Amino acid sequence: MAGSLKETVEESDTRLGRLFDFSIQALIVLSLVTFSIETLPHLSPSYQKLLSALELLCVVVFTFEYIVRLWVADRKIAFVFSFFGVIDLIAILPFYLTLGIDLRSVRVFRFLRLFRILKLVRYNQAVRRFHRALLIAREEIVLFAVVALILLYLAAVGIYYFENEAQPEAFASVFHSLWWATATLTTVGYGDVYPVTVGGRCFTFLVLLVGLGIVSVPAGLVASALSKAREIEDGKELFETDTKDCR
Amino acid sequence: MAGSLKETVEESDTRLGRLFDFSIQALIVLSLVTFSIETLPHLSPSYQKLLSALELLCVVVFTFEYIVRLWVADRKIAFVFSFFGVIDLIAILPFYLTLGIDLRSVRVFRFLRLFRILKLVRYNQAVRRFHRALLIAREEIVLFAVVALILLYLAAVGIYYFENEAQPEAFASVFHSLWWATATLTTVGYGDVYPVTVGGRCFTFLVLLVGLGIVSVPAGLVASALSKAREIEDGKELFETDTKDCR
Amino acid sequence: MAGSLKETVEESDTRLGRLFDFSIQALIVLSLVTFSIETLPHLSPSYQKLLSALELLCVVVFTFEYIVRLWVADRKIAFVFSFFGVIDLIAILPFYLTLGIDLRSVRVFRFLRLFRILKLVRYNQAVRRFHRALLIAREEIVLFAVVALILLYLAAVGIYYFENEAQPEAFASVFHSLWWATATLTTVGYGDVYPVTVGGRCFTFLVLLVGLGIVSVPAGLVASALSKAREIEDGKELFETDTKDCR
Amino acid sequence: MAGSLKETVEESDTRLGRLFDFSIQALIVLSLVTFSIETLPHLSPSYQKLLSALELLCVVVFTFEYIVRLWVADRKIAFVFSFFGVIDLIAILPFYLTLGIDLRSVRVFRFLRLFRILKLVRYNQAVRRFHRALLIAREEIVLFAVVALILLYLAAVGIYYFENEAQPEAFASVFHSLWWATATLTTVGYGDVYPVTVGGRCFTFLVLLVGLGIVSVPAGLVASALSKAREIEDGKELFETDTKDCR
Repeated sequence: MAGSLKETVEESDTRLGRLFDFSIQALIVLSLVTFSIETLPHLSPSYQKLLSALELLCVVVFTFEYIVRLWVADRKIAFVFSFFGVIDLIAILPFYLTLGIDLRSVRVFRFLRLFRILKLVRYNQAVRRFHRALLIAREEIVLFAVVALILLYLAAVGIYYFENEAQPEAFASVFHSLWWATATLTTVGYGDVYPVTVGGRCFTFLVLLVGLGIVSVPAGLVASALSKAREIEDGKELFETDTKDCR
Repeated sequence: MAGSLKETVEESDTRLGRLFDFSIQALIVLSLVTFSIETLPHLSPSYQKLLSALELLCVVVFTFEYIVRLWVADRKIAFVFSFFGVIDLIAILPFYLTLGIDLRSVRVFRFLRLFRILKLVRYNQAVRRFHRALLIAREEIVLFAVVALILLYLAAVGIYYFENEAQPEAFASVFHSLWWATATLTTVGYGDVYPVTVGGRCFTFLVLLVGLGIVSVPAGLVASALSKAREIEDGKELFETDTKDCR
Repeated sequence: MAGSLKETVEESDTRLGRLFDFSIQALIVLSLVTFSIETLPHLSPSYQKLLSALELLCVVVFTFEYIVRLWVADRKIAFVFSFFGVIDLIAILPFYLTLGIDLRSVRVFRFLRLFRILKLVRYNQAVRRFHRALLIAREEIVLFAVVALILLYLAAVGIYYFENEAQPEAFASVFHSLWWATATLTTVGYGDVYPVTVGGRCFTFLVLLVGLGIVSVPAGLVASALSKAREIEDGKELFETDTKDCR
Repeated sequence: MAGSLKETVEESDTRLGRLFDFSIQALIVLSLVTFSIETLPHLSPSYQKLLSALELLCVVVFTFEYIVRLWVADRKIAFVFSFFGVIDLIAILPFYLTLGIDLRSVRVFRFLRLFRILKLVRYNQAVRRFHRALLIAREEIVLFAVVALILLYLAAVGIYYFENEAQPEAFASVFHSLWWATATLTTVGYGDVYPVTVGGRCFTFLVLLVGLGIVSVPAGLVASALSKAREIEDGKELFETDTKDCR
């Protein structure tokens, strides 16, 4: 009985295990929706009562889940300090610590539960492949990230010199200019700050000419590294076939 | 005669078949243009009459087409419940159901006809290759979609905490913040909502640093999976040549 | 003498030929700058005189170039009706047709001269490779372009239904909505039109979820087709080496 | 002693060398932060004193570093005129030239120090690979850059003709339109200038249809060239193994 409970909780191969997993995940999504609705202004008291009830339900189930997971764990201490053990605890602890007290800010930890969705794909091939792809392209990604940060800073310093006089509010300092540089180099372009001087606009053009390439290359790197990682996996089998053919 | 009619309607290899296909497609485009023009405000009554006449013409031809397709179909029931059979019916049914009544909202189904353009490429190699590419990269695409959604939610929760006090209107709740998160992580950046606090701006920078990669990787994945799918097709022939050379 | 003149004008291998090419190109850029400056409002009469003089110089040299090219061409009729022959004529004809008359609108043809910059890369390997890449990925690019246009239209129709009532000005018809769809799906996001209703915003989210991939895949397709085209070129040599090794 | 000092300054293999490198880099970051904070408006005098002191500290250490580097250099003249030698001098010279005088504008050279961060990755494999990738895709990148610039100019000329009458301020000349073209083709879309006429909007749609591909292809080219460069490195080893197997 304890063995089958252990299987149900820790594996998702059996029918019961999958049911357990999906129930917990549905509850995570429910608790997130509850959390989001609570932030809505002008909620009627009856709604607030319903949300509190749902909140209580989630915490009770998550507490029960935590206790069961702890109970079936082979190494209890290891579970408590494991990544998901800590998250499981963080997700329920704030409720007990603040019983009766309204401590909204602590609730922010609850969304850490969301990471548990990743459990679904933990032993998945895609995650392994993604990990392998990051290892393949790690050096280039770090290089591009560093160059992108340097470019961001240089863009902010440059636009500060061009626009500070014309717009002393929007480009009040290099730090203010960094906000412009972020919005521009990521091509978000909110439109709250933008250059108005001729020099500033030419500078923006040059920065974008260089910057667009640097900012969008890493995504391409990850994509091609992922297809490379897939090739390596497939290649192992192919290579064996290939050399056999040649011999 | 019935055989050649069947060929004309179902195949696009013969000259008549291609003519039939192009006529239907031209009519689909015409009916879409009609549909679009009808939404224009301040249309003169004479224009409205012309549009109604065109509309009637389209429905009559589409009805005729549906009857012919049903007539030449080998398995009539299968055609009625096939994807394109249902769309063909949906495209004409609303007109007959609302004869004399102005039921604008039902007209929305008409644009489903647009999907029939895809018929042109149905047996095309590109679609097969795209399908193969999706199968190759399916796991990574699902993984990135899930991670992107989680990131979107976390970004909305985070910006809510930073900006709610400073802009109680724009960031009134997590749901309002989700709109900001959508516009920002897709780099659309309308500029109707944007962070103004220092914390919110730094948070936006961090979210974009992580988010840009995650949001734009799937497109690169599809592209490289497509080129991989092309390689597999070509590779089958090449592989045979290759091993022949070695033996 | 005529032979060396022919070489100078038509080839860019000799020193004189390269000098001739660069002079003409410099003059093209000069004429473009002149053209651009003329559009500036509030030009002083002295500037306008200088611009007219530069304009005259450009036309004289381009006329001279056209005559020389025609003179050295082996097949004169073929040159006159060739792509660059027509552009050369278009670039100078407006001036003679409008002698004394101010015919600004015709000047727009002059910027067709800019395409002559492409002559520089005409026999270049990169253009051949790009052409080969387009052939490789042609089917996918056409497929994605068609799907993107369909999506654009569907997005416009959808947002029209969601936003027409709330913003009867900005989303007055499907055509107005198409402008929003263009600005949104390309992630430009000017911010002049954006959804304000909850339905419209959720719809925007869904459209972007699907649309971003479709819009940005073609660029990745071209990029990976280009690297494939490079591989094919390199592969031909490698393949020969490879099979030699095996035998 | 001089030998070990030379090692400490020029190499980063030893523990002392790494400590020296990190100290200098930390000081570079500190001097950049100081530089950025100085641009903040309304700084209290006590803060300004602190910043001046930090500034002095940085200059003193950088001067000391420059002297040591010069002292341990084998070829002193070569060091002075080397890239990093010049930057090192530029970073400290302004301070001495302006002793007592407030010469803010010269301080702009100080941020050249940031480039020294690149020293860290100078002998790194990623930089070599990136260099190799640029060589592989150089022709295509130049081709796309030239085509992108031509497109940018044509877009500016086109929108000028469409929007000049409707918005004589925002699209006052081709140069003003270039600003719109930059913001649009890079998809930044600040929203300070955008077309309002039907013609201008259709033109924008066409420009984006063509332009998006051209602007975003180079990033994909770099990414796939990088993965190609990695393959070449790996391929050398694989090729040897491969042919061995066949023999």
